[in-house]
Amino acid sequence: MSTERQRHPAAPTISEVAAAAGVGRATVARTLGNYGSVSDVTRARVLLAAERLGYQPNTLARSMTTGITKTLGIVLADVGNPFFSGVLRAIAETAKGSGYDAIVLSTNENLELERDAIRVLLAKQVDGLVVASAAGRGDDVSHLAAAVDRGTPMVLIDRLVDSLEVDSVVIDNRDAARRAVGSMIAQGHRRIALAWGPVTLSPATDLDQMHRILDRALWSDGERLRGYLDALEEAGLPFDTALVTHVLKNEDQATRAVNGMLALADPPTAIFTTETEATVGALRAIRSRNLRMPAEISLIGFDDSPWAAVMDPPLTMIEQPMRHLGATAAAQILRRIDGDESPAERHIAPSRLISRSSDGPAPRA
Amino acid sequence: MSTERQRHPAAPTISEVAAAAGVGRATVARTLGNYGSVSDVTRARVLLAAERLGYQPNTLARSMTTGITKTLGIVLADVGNPFFSGVLRAIAETAKGSGYDAIVLSTNENLELERDAIRVLLAKQVDGLVVASAAGRGDDVSHLAAAVDRGTPMVLIDRLVDSLEVDSVVIDNRDAARRAVGSMIAQGHRRIALAWGPVTLSPATDLDQMHRILDRALWSDGERLRGYLDALEEAGLPFDTALVTHVLKNEDQATRAVNGMLALADPPTAIFTTETEATVGALRAIRSRNLRMPAEISLIGFDDSPWAAVMDPPLTMIEQPMRHLGATAAAQILRRIDGDESPAERHIAPSRLISRSSDGPAPRA
Repeated sequence: MSTERQRHPAAPTISEVAAAAGVGRATVARTLGNYGSVSDVTRARVLLAAERLGYQPNTLARSMTTGITKTLGIVLADVGNPFFSGVLRAIAETAKGSGYDAIVLSTNENLELERDAIRVLLAKQVDGLVVASAAGRGDDVSHLAAAVDRGTPMVLIDRLVDSLEVDSVVIDNRDAARRAVGSMIAQGHRRIALAWGPVTLSPATDLDQMHRILDRALWSDGERLRGYLDALEEAGLPFDTALVTHVLKNEDQATRAVNGMLALADPPTAIFTTETEATVGALRAIRSRNLRMPAEISLIGFDDSPWAAVMDPPLTMIEQPMRHLGATAAAQILRRIDGDESPAERHIAPSRLISRSSDGPAPRA
Repeated sequence: MSTERQRHPAAPTISEVAAAAGVGRATVARTLGNYGSVSDVTRARVLLAAERLGYQPNTLARSMTTGITKTLGIVLADVGNPFFSGVLRAIAETAKGSGYDAIVLSTNENLELERDAIRVLLAKQVDGLVVASAAGRGDDVSHLAAAVDRGTPMVLIDRLVDSLEVDSVVIDNRDAARRAVGSMIAQGHRRIALAWGPVTLSPATDLDQMHRILDRALWSDGERLRGYLDALEEAGLPFDTALVTHVLKNEDQATRAVNGMLALADPPTAIFTTETEATVGALRAIRSRNLRMPAEISLIGFDDSPWAAVMDPPLTMIEQPMRHLGATAAAQILRRIDGDESPAERHIAPSRLISRSSDGPAPRA
């Protein structure tokens, strides 16, 4: 433990600059804020005093004239998700190429924290917003609408928000899920579990109710479940509510939920996981029941990760193009900041099913 | 693709508010900035006009009086590292509990980007900084020193920076590495590889040169390697430069480097990895050579992750207390913002070696 005292000199205030320059605070504000009328001599005196005292140039005041602070505000539902951190890295790199810095807030999938994040970023005068919203369909998104109305360009990433007419960069989650589940059906699987469905207190009792739940779900959750339903329907397979989990999104809940499904009298022979935590939970359940993969149980999931390829067996996963998504979103928000007022665009980036060895033919009954 | 036009009304400027209120810009600035003298009637007129036009309250101007913007600036070396995103989540939660928001910039282990990040956060008037610096020992850290001199409280997290007399929150990396390597030595291993050592163009030729390299390395890299050397020395084992990688820090490089070591005439029987990417690279190399773990090769690494426990075999890993580190750093910076001027403190958080099944007795020669 150090014994030296920490230095905490107060940052010079506008009052101190005013006192040092022998002028009033309003004059300092006008000079440093670059507005109103200030004589050349007074301006020089204020700038000299500000420099001597180490006054931090007030970026916001300077930006009052240009309106540009050269920063993007990024709001992510969960920066701890490797998908989002990969996207963020690409956004930051692309922004940097144009001289912009990206400042980030993570909302932990909490809409209340998202409202705070938007408020903070607007107060920090960011030039544009890139948002992966935590809003479910039907949730109040007035905080996003207000930012757009105020003239702050916004690009949605990973998740659409129905009521907002802004640019978006997403993958076709429904198609990706349909193809993954379809590939398991093609290998003879008839009982395919889905972890996770949307979190609900009362799980769906039938397909109709499931569709009503989907109408209120997070866009990407809903799309992935729709893709699962599409694949079943194309193959003429019945939908069984017992094969969709509706638990809170953590690994322990996923483990318990998948364990419960594997204990059914007519258990699934394949599992489709829609998130990394669901994949880890499913793997834990499979290990705890000593099921051989893929001989006794198949698994395909979102998203591909470096560790998925070194698992035994290596996991078949859906890869999202994180770099492409982030770079596209950043390029789009920079175009809007530059004044592009063309109609809102939806960019759909390709995803890829990476076949490895966690899925195989269905075991014989 | 949508065909509706996107709305981009310009954000109202201070000039527009002035025009609407029938006063000068300086008066608007004084009113909204809450300084100087403005009559009650004029103040009401300005506030009414600002509200009608949807003028965003200028947080910075308001903060001129209090000096507090209720935001923390977080600078992380790599937000894509699950360790840092876990730390960040704990910082944000603790800060929120005191009404503070945490805004983040990630530097990709690049000191130039770190300088930019500090500049951006100071310009955004954060009340305090939490920094995991990309600086190696001997690197220029004047950007950090300048922020401290200016009076912005700073807490270092995960990595110390020798020349800064500020609070820090770290684990004892040296001791954690010493214990992990020591446990492999206790199981009979004599040839233990380390992935990664510090990145260098010319790898160490002997122990003396290795110590000179360590004097310029990133603090945490250096400490982990020192712990490895400690364990060898305690057991009277010789140091072999061929068993330490000095490659660029990505999985492909780690794979090649570990493969190279496994191909030696006298290969290692155990591997100690200091980062997740090194662990993944080592696993790839082990798989590609069809080595059985732990019968033919043992592995222990930093940091524990959810997927480590579902590997086959489950991996023995060092767990860092991400929540504890983040919460402690946030609590400390909030105390400094509240005016605590006691001497700088170094908090050392406990780490834990989680024994699973990737390490075992050394194979017989």
